Amino acid sequence: MPTLEFFYDFVSPYSFLASTRVEAIAHRCGAPVRFLPFLLGGVFKATQNRAPIETAAKGRHMLVDLERWAKRLQVPLAFPATFPFGSILALRCALAAEREGKLVPFTHAVFRAAWTEGKDVASPEVLAGLAGGVGLDGAKLVAAAPEFKAALMAQTEEAVRRGAFGAPTFFVGQEMFVGNDRLDFVEEALRARLP
Amino acid sequence: MPTLEFFYDFVSPYSFLASTRVEAIAHRCGAPVRFLPFLLGGVFKATQNRAPIETAAKGRHMLVDLERWAKRLQVPLAFPATFPFGSILALRCALAAEREGKLVPFTHAVFRAAWTEGKDVASPEVLAGLAGGVGLDGAKLVAAAPEFKAALMAQTEEAVRRGAFGAPTFFVGQEMFVGNDRLDFVEEALRARLP
Repeated sequence: MPTLEFFYDFVSPYSFLASTRVEAIAHRCGAPVRFLPFLLGGVFKATQNRAPIETAAKGRHMLVDLERWAKRLQVPLAFPATFPFGSILALRCALAAEREGKLVPFTHAVFRAAWTEGKDVASPEVLAGLAGGVGLDGAKLVAAAPEFKAALMAQTEEAVRRGAFGAPTFFVGQEMFVGNDRLDFVEEALRARLP
Repeated sequence: MPTLEFFYDFVSPYSFLASTRVEAIAHRCGAPVRFLPFLLGGVFKATQNRAPIETAAKGRHMLVDLERWAKRLQVPLAFPATFPFGSILALRCALAAEREGKLVPFTHAVFRAAWTEGKDVASPEVLAGLAGGVGLDGAKLVAAAPEFKAALMAQTEEAVRRGAFGAPTFFVGQEMFVGNDRLDFVEEALRARLP
């Protein structure tokens, strides 16, 4: 049974949308999910790709498209006051949370705070509070974040080496899928591998 | 009843995929379709957007993604030997064919030649042959193409003014949708406007 690998960055609203359903999809296919935070800015830099909002017309339309998806998935969506925001501390905290066995609940907490409440998840205080909410020592987690600088970079480089150029990116074995809007293809790939 | 407006360029493989189903979608919603050739290169220039293949990793993945879509839609797909190819003559010919009441069959003929047979639709001879196949005088059509330079530019500028930044682009009234992968949203928008 293959694992569904889910590479995401908190700054990516389409990663947020994917985070709300990736476990349900994997679950109904009997596949485990692996959550893999990576730095989208690093991916863009390595691949010379750029964010949708760097093209004005595309950035404007992204807001419309996100609203449509949020309505379809029945997910509340609030844009953070600052966008794009710095996600590197939150991503390092996610890896610190992984060491404590809390990567998935911490990830959901950060995504929800940023994208349904519009909270500033670049803030150490906000991140500490979110960590506390999932049973972690928030101050300790944030203090440990710098230890995960190299691990975050390595995870980002791994994704790029395997072909990633944006977020969210999924792998089912060697097959790569890019975007929340490809989760139906992801599900088909998982089903095709059912024993 | 709103019209479904379909802006496309022959050089865009996702426009080709959309062209194979846009009429069926509109038909089951009781909506008329308007075919609107435009110059994707002009759209990119005006919006400072760029083609997926300008980012190497994205271009490589596009081939995989296209194969998946072709399989899902059961559409044969062959990549032209030259890609991207110059589509401006084919687009002007399409507008010339429109004057003769043959825009839609000529459009399908060009898309099929380029994307299921890998033919060179930048060639005047190929275009003349395709025009002949839909009951037009091919040599006359190709000779008339330069008359449609301004009309093609105007149609491209209209799309950009309304927010387009890529292809295919659809409008249902004022609502814009971008990409073959948003035709489900297009269908929902058409259904929502059923009397």
